[in-house]
Amino acid sequence: MEMVDPKHPPAKRNWYERYVLPCLAELLGSAAFVFIGCMSVVEDAVGTGLVQPALVHGLSIVPIVVSLENISGAHTNPVVSLAIWLIGGMEHIMLIPYIVAQLCGGILGAALTKAAANSANFDTKFGGAFGIIKTNEQIGPALGNEIILTTFLLLVVCMTAVNVETKSHLAPVCIALTVVINIMAGGTISGPCMNPARAFGPAVIANYWLYHWVYWVGPLIGCLISSILIRFVIGGRAIRLFLK
Amino acid sequence: MEMVDPKHPPAKRNWYERYVLPCLAELLGSAAFVFIGCMSVVEDAVGTGLVQPALVHGLSIVPIVVSLENISGAHTNPVVSLAIWLIGGMEHIMLIPYIVAQLCGGILGAALTKAAANSANFDTKFGGAFGIIKTNEQIGPALGNEIILTTFLLLVVCMTAVNVETKSHLAPVCIALTVVINIMAGGTISGPCMNPARAFGPAVIANYWLYHWVYWVGPLIGCLISSILIRFVIGGRAIRLFLK
Amino acid sequence: MEMVDPKHPPAKRNWYERYVLPCLAELLGSAAFVFIGCMSVVEDAVGTGLVQPALVHGLSIVPIVVSLENISGAHTNPVVSLAIWLIGGMEHIMLIPYIVAQLCGGILGAALTKAAANSANFDTKFGGAFGIIKTNEQIGPALGNEIILTTFLLLVVCMTAVNVETKSHLAPVCIALTVVINIMAGGTISGPCMNPARAFGPAVIANYWLYHWVYWVGPLIGCLISSILIRFVIGGRAIRLFLK
Amino acid sequence: MEMVDPKHPPAKRNWYERYVLPCLAELLGSAAFVFIGCMSVVEDAVGTGLVQPALVHGLSIVPIVVSLENISGAHTNPVVSLAIWLIGGMEHIMLIPYIVAQLCGGILGAALTKAAANSANFDTKFGGAFGIIKTNEQIGPALGNEIILTTFLLLVVCMTAVNVETKSHLAPVCIALTVVINIMAGGTISGPCMNPARAFGPAVIANYWLYHWVYWVGPLIGCLISSILIRFVIGGRAIRLFLK
Repeated sequence: MEMVDPKHPPAKRNWYERYVLPCLAELLGSAAFVFIGCMSVVEDAVGTGLVQPALVHGLSIVPIVVSLENISGAHTNPVVSLAIWLIGGMEHIMLIPYIVAQLCGGILGAALTKAAANSANFDTKFGGAFGIIKTNEQIGPALGNEIILTTFLLLVVCMTAVNVETKSHLAPVCIALTVVINIMAGGTISGPCMNPARAFGPAVIANYWLYHWVYWVGPLIGCLISSILIRFVIGGRAIRLFLK
Repeated sequence: MEMVDPKHPPAKRNWYERYVLPCLAELLGSAAFVFIGCMSVVEDAVGTGLVQPALVHGLSIVPIVVSLENISGAHTNPVVSLAIWLIGGMEHIMLIPYIVAQLCGGILGAALTKAAANSANFDTKFGGAFGIIKTNEQIGPALGNEIILTTFLLLVVCMTAVNVETKSHLAPVCIALTVVINIMAGGTISGPCMNPARAFGPAVIANYWLYHWVYWVGPLIGCLISSILIRFVIGGRAIRLFLK
Repeated sequence: MEMVDPKHPPAKRNWYERYVLPCLAELLGSAAFVFIGCMSVVEDAVGTGLVQPALVHGLSIVPIVVSLENISGAHTNPVVSLAIWLIGGMEHIMLIPYIVAQLCGGILGAALTKAAANSANFDTKFGGAFGIIKTNEQIGPALGNEIILTTFLLLVVCMTAVNVETKSHLAPVCIALTVVINIMAGGTISGPCMNPARAFGPAVIANYWLYHWVYWVGPLIGCLISSILIRFVIGGRAIRLFLK
Repeated sequence: MEMVDPKHPPAKRNWYERYVLPCLAELLGSAAFVFIGCMSVVEDAVGTGLVQPALVHGLSIVPIVVSLENISGAHTNPVVSLAIWLIGGMEHIMLIPYIVAQLCGGILGAALTKAAANSANFDTKFGGAFGIIKTNEQIGPALGNEIILTTFLLLVVCMTAVNVETKSHLAPVCIALTVVINIMAGGTISGPCMNPARAFGPAVIANYWLYHWVYWVGPLIGCLISSILIRFVIGGRAIRLFLK
């Protein structure tokens, strides 16, 4: 999200602040996001629909992004880092370390869930891993859902937090609300995940891998579509590749 | 909503940026709004009242408006464009292209819903089309509801995003919350729609036209009432036509 | 709420803008608030607790206040006007006209509810009038509840929108959230109303006056307590009457 | 939270404004927080999950913090004061008076709950005291839950309201949303409390002390962990103790 507050310029960051701290921030932010999200799924009340998981996953993004955006950009999601990299919004050297930190954060968050949750609930809900897809017939809509919703999410991230012409101080709120509404809209079809780190962490800890690949392939295709839309259609002059 | 950030002036926009891109933005914004709204209706949980559809339709406006307002104003609603045009807030030449783009966006969004939703649910809920009015006796309250709620929505749009004296950076949040509360308040009477593009898209895709005209006539009357109130009573000096 | 945006000074307001328009704004704002609130009560879904009425009443304050605060302050509540007058935040001559406009707005809002709601639901719920208190034993807690919650609400109004040292651009959001949480917290005890115009309008239209006085006495006592706390304890130097 | 608005400098505060008023603000803020929180628990509707208590506790923080942050910082929580003191964000002399004021505020808030609530509900729910832990087996997860969630909350407080590099005007919103999501995520395991004043007040008034110590020990450990993380890992140059 890379917003730099003019009143607090990062000055000369030393090596710790340039390379180590951002990765630690991504790890911490991803761990917080995955922990809080998995807890909301594992300990969800019966009969209240998708309201609780949607609000918890989505709204957690506001404090996480505001706390960490001036340190690492607070991506906390491999496809967010990939999309921002594809539209030229982050240093090449940091892409792989960020993604590794996010996946490790996901595992840490899921492990903390195991420590804090009721263990019977943890087992029933596979520790917050995505257990919605049970049969091959569900793959089509689930994949479509992940692709469309991830595209929508990443367009919002790129337009409100990276693209110069449309950047806004409301970016953390916009991204958070997009996650809330995406989960309420597509929750019964695929989750939706929109974030491989959120899928990977609990899959490792609960050792639940059924149709896990959908939560990598869907978000990655969404990432490509959103990057193409930004690069060729709606991005501003600094990003768009034609007609400028 | 036509707000121009003084730090990022649009400079000299070329023909793509002046005429093509705004229409693409309206199409994309309307498609996102209709897709996410229809999904929330088609896949709604039983027994949670109107909370999910209200939050999804309303809150989706924040990211859509913030992402696109510097490109096209992010109307994503024919009666919003018409009201802003009636109070002198947009170029004459763009009114018809905007409305065409919004209706096409509505169809695209409804088509994406068909691709991503569970097909049994899609059929039961007519793909998110408004199926509340079943008998002629319901027309009166439904029409009254659409008129009053659309008037309220368009007054908020015009006062917080166009009228100089009352314009605010909180405009996207105000408009979003108005949609949330309007749906919670009038959801059992008429939907409410307040947006012909939202009604038209799923009506085309699901081929469901019962009492469809109510969702054009109601919002249009609300549009006229709100424009008259702004032009003659509560608008500021740049808009109000008398006593200035 | 009286916040003046330095970029858009009201310049020289003419008599229409100084005396007539603010009263029309109070009437319109109160009508919108009472209409949307009563609709949310009359058409509430069964079994979803207080979430819908609380969100509708509270969140409606954000668009209403942002739309009208530069015109009239957007009090839309007699005890808000009284509290702001008691701490020196409004012109003496406008107090009575504001309160009359708010009460007329309440009646108009309740009448619109009668037009738009399902008439069976309208009768069952007394058109949104407060029908919680059925017996004399309930008066004590209900009155206590109204007093404490109105005090809390008016302290937030005065501290975030009037008091120089603590004024904030988040005032509309703070006031809205206070109404949301007050209704969730005290909804089963007294409503809570915290606004005589909200109680008066539907009482007139539905002709329902049982224990109506509680919704005048409670808010008025809360108004006095909050004004005393501001004037003598926590107000800033411009408002506090001692130790400055 | 200690944010000073440059437009309204506190000028020269007199002894009342420097020492007495901040403690009164902490007392009033804590009383409001505990009253509204306990009411939401005591009068909660059946079958709506954790949505109401989570929204009430969390969202109440926005108006309380915005109203009082320029007076006392609006900690309203002993471990918030302790964490801010540990990272060098408040005067040494005020730590003990703040904590005393917060605990007295908690008792006052719980006493007001007794006055306003239905007395049968008050007894059933122990006046809003935390009655979730019934057996020794529950202590482990409950303690883990309190520690992790308090750590998360205090990191958000320190990063968004104290740490220079990441401070934000959205701090009150971030802190409020963290409380909302923490309660939705961990509500069935330990409450969660994250605030000894919130636990202490109703425990005194309802005289309910079963496993009360968990709500002191958990938040205190979370406070230490978050302070260590800020001081040694993610804090900015003014706070971090190494590699700067």
